[in-house]
Amino acid sequence: MTENDRGISQAVVSRLPRYFRYLGELKDEGVERISSQDLSELMKVTASQIRQDFNNFGGFGQQGYGYNVEYLYREIGKILGLDRIHSYIIVGAGNLGRALGNYLNFERRGFLLKGMFDQNPRLIGGSVRGIPVMPMEEMDRFVRENAIEIAVLTLPKASAVEVADRLARDGIKAIWNFAHVDLNLPEGIQVENVHLSDSLMKLSYNLTRYSKEQEEK
Amino acid sequence: MTENDRGISQAVVSRLPRYFRYLGELKDEGVERISSQDLSELMKVTASQIRQDFNNFGGFGQQGYGYNVEYLYREIGKILGLDRIHSYIIVGAGNLGRALGNYLNFERRGFLLKGMFDQNPRLIGGSVRGIPVMPMEEMDRFVRENAIEIAVLTLPKASAVEVADRLARDGIKAIWNFAHVDLNLPEGIQVENVHLSDSLMKLSYNLTRYSKEQEEK
Repeated sequence: MTENDRGISQAVVSRLPRYFRYLGELKDEGVERISSQDLSELMKVTASQIRQDFNNFGGFGQQGYGYNVEYLYREIGKILGLDRIHSYIIVGAGNLGRALGNYLNFERRGFLLKGMFDQNPRLIGGSVRGIPVMPMEEMDRFVRENAIEIAVLTLPKASAVEVADRLARDGIKAIWNFAHVDLNLPEGIQVENVHLSDSLMKLSYNLTRYSKEQEEK
Repeated sequence: MTENDRGISQAVVSRLPRYFRYLGELKDEGVERISSQDLSELMKVTASQIRQDFNNFGGFGQQGYGYNVEYLYREIGKILGLDRIHSYIIVGAGNLGRALGNYLNFERRGFLLKGMFDQNPRLIGGSVRGIPVMPMEEMDRFVRENAIEIAVLTLPKASAVEVADRLARDGIKAIWNFAHVDLNLPEGIQVENVHLSDSLMKLSYNLTRYSKEQEEK
């Protein structure tokens, strides 16, 4: 949703985490250098795509004999902001909220869960990894006092818009939105949507189209 | 990941569920007709994008005075395969698996949850909406006997690749993959990835870039 005004398209940005993931695996396997050709085969994208993507960030000094894996991993990590600590809250402590709160991977990447919020009295007072679930009335003060950067919205659509507006007023910097609605927030608040139903429908489209093609054969 | 060989790009396909969502809301609000211009303002995409997207499917007969909302909603639903029933299982009955199993919206769209599987003895024998969590050993027979179309993988990365290979042999048609790994499956098996960490990193990139820009000002 966020349009980049620095000439780096969101399509490129979307591919960075995948590079980061593959480079992390290579690093863990002890690989020190990799050519764009080998990386291309591994990731099933063209070598020229890789070079083009990397050129957006100065090219990372490929020297003919390939990229330094550790260096590239670290540099892409920096570009992704993973060299900083980001505090976040989860609003909506249902199954999905708790699932996200339990992902230790996020913690490892520097995303620190500071609190969870819900309006359901049966969930309030509970906790995930020791992080308490607090009532919605306490959210605004908590966000302001703790300078929370990111809010994860795992709420029903009906309340998500209002909660997002509140968070905007509280000074939130980014919203990771799982509610099935598009948010309209002031410029400067980054929004990343995960519309799970949209993803399932895309799968359904491809499944249906393929089935029809097979039937026609 | 799936490449379409019929000239309709996955970028267009990715936008269809969003059209479907907005048209469903318009329909629920009693709107009968909408011009591409009004739809454009509502959805914040250009009217020419909308017309181009729809032209991939024959244009849906816009008549100068706009699209028939109900008709367009129904037609896009058909294209997305939502006029068919799709059976699915969830492999991995942790928080995320249970969250997805509880989404009644999927059921409403014709996606019927038939079973859940896990290897954790504490989860086996439990249930979500009356759907039992069964042991992993029973998965292959269950998929074959019930002609399951879709498997949702909410498993750790380490076991996802092996389980996906098993499902491929069992005749699964599509995999909705939440495991943080890319699957390499035989052609004809549709895969839709939801890599949550990638999405969070994209948010982190936009957040970091924006903060840096503000600091530089």
